[in-house]
Amino acid sequence: MKICVVGLGLLGGSFSLGLRALNGDYHVIGVDKDEEHARQALDLGIADELAGFEEGVSQCDVVVLATPVDELVKQARASLDIIREDAVVFDLGSTKSQICAAVADHPRRGRFLAAHPIAGTEDSGPRAAFAELLPGKMIILCDHDLTDNSALESVVDLLQKLEMRVEHMPSAAHDMHIAYVSHLSHISSFALGATVLEKEKNENNIFIMAGSGFDSTVRLAKSSPDMWTPIFEQNRENISEAIGKYIEQLQAFKQMLDSDNGKAMHRFMKETNDIRRVLKGD
Amino acid sequence: MKICVVGLGLLGGSFSLGLRALNGDYHVIGVDKDEEHARQALDLGIADELAGFEEGVSQCDVVVLATPVDELVKQARASLDIIREDAVVFDLGSTKSQICAAVADHPRRGRFLAAHPIAGTEDSGPRAAFAELLPGKMIILCDHDLTDNSALESVVDLLQKLEMRVEHMPSAAHDMHIAYVSHLSHISSFALGATVLEKEKNENNIFIMAGSGFDSTVRLAKSSPDMWTPIFEQNRENISEAIGKYIEQLQAFKQMLDSDNGKAMHRFMKETNDIRRVLKGD
Repeated sequence: MKICVVGLGLLGGSFSLGLRALNGDYHVIGVDKDEEHARQALDLGIADELAGFEEGVSQCDVVVLATPVDELVKQARASLDIIREDAVVFDLGSTKSQICAAVADHPRRGRFLAAHPIAGTEDSGPRAAFAELLPGKMIILCDHDLTDNSALESVVDLLQKLEMRVEHMPSAAHDMHIAYVSHLSHISSFALGATVLEKEKNENNIFIMAGSGFDSTVRLAKSSPDMWTPIFEQNRENISEAIGKYIEQLQAFKQMLDSDNGKAMHRFMKETNDIRRVLKGD
Repeated sequence: MKICVVGLGLLGGSFSLGLRALNGDYHVIGVDKDEEHARQALDLGIADELAGFEEGVSQCDVVVLATPVDELVKQARASLDIIREDAVVFDLGSTKSQICAAVADHPRRGRFLAAHPIAGTEDSGPRAAFAELLPGKMIILCDHDLTDNSALESVVDLLQKLEMRVEHMPSAAHDMHIAYVSHLSHISSFALGATVLEKEKNENNIFIMAGSGFDSTVRLAKSSPDMWTPIFEQNRENISEAIGKYIEQLQAFKQMLDSDNGKAMHRFMKETNDIRRVLKGD
């Protein structure tokens, strides 16, 4: 099977490495407009060979799009224009409504599948990729009723070989929920990093006093602006609502603190402790 | 050496386990008003024997106070009242101004040392304790010029045996910086958890869509309200300022988002990426 991976960074690279670790009959053609990244990907065994976008996409059975979400929207349509008749295109982007809208009226819409793997790290580029990133993780397929059965089956088959857990969701619902459960986390982390960097101009205090708690809450503030700016732009309304609700919670907590209402703070924390149970799926 | 550990939870328990792992001549007397925790601590090898507060504190060379910070303030004075003449008392609390104020006029102030280890997890109680928590971590000693040299030396000697890295800081400066670098992280995390729990009443979406990013930013929202309420109360003014600054950063980001200012969002994230370098101490 010939697979074209467009975007050889953390996600595209990890998808390819995960698949190649299965030792199946997969030939990966890598596409990346960053020549340095493309060369690294070849060296790291992410791709068997490199090609330009048209050359790579037009000759493969499966096309995986793993670029920033503003590029994805253009590449999804461009891929459908040139793929082989029985080929399938799917993306790994963090927003799903705009890409689905972009291909909605394409005559070959049935050969496209919108997908979002719930996996990542704060690092980016081919060197951040690793074979273990995707296996065992959730992947959400959106609006899959608009995808031909044969195309859907071939993608799901690949994902299951990678031991990913498949869930389905409408793209609009996906974007609303993911604004709260992922995009807001990134903004809370960037804002925390900005607050501390602004206050602690003598960085030595950060270095001395930062423990695992700060590390953990600020980790996502190391994420790539090139990747996240278009995500925030594409999911603007949902994220704006989520930040607004988050600010309300912080203001409510500040009010409890300022009025020295220890009982209210205790109750707020006790109720929020429920997140432990929810994340375990109890 | 006889060491009395008051509060046999995550920190007190880990201090004791770390010390006992050195196989030195340490006899640990454990004190905990929670009888279930006290029994667990004995079973887990955290303490050699159990005692009441007065009985334990009055017979030891070193007294370590590791209870919530509202109890610490009372126990610090109460310990100084009853320790042996050459004994030393130190605490492991996350706030330092109030405990230093509480012992300021005690005739035996010189036998007390205020300490804050930069270490912890979101778990609590004796079962959360482990010998590896403290070794290699930073510990901040506050207002140490008010501690007798002999008392200071005996604590620093113990901390160095545990391979902790010792730093010094005035208690007021400690409380201001730690509000930003630790306490704010906890509040950002609790507010995030509360926002998502409020929105996602169908918890299934959290479970399906929560990845490592959400896990990491919300981890501290599992922390103990019994421990954190008094910390927030004792460091109220610094924390209130920190939350205020954090809300300002979030509002600024929301403004960039609402006005679709991708360039500003990109710059904000790019600048905040500097936290990666700062945390590495580069």
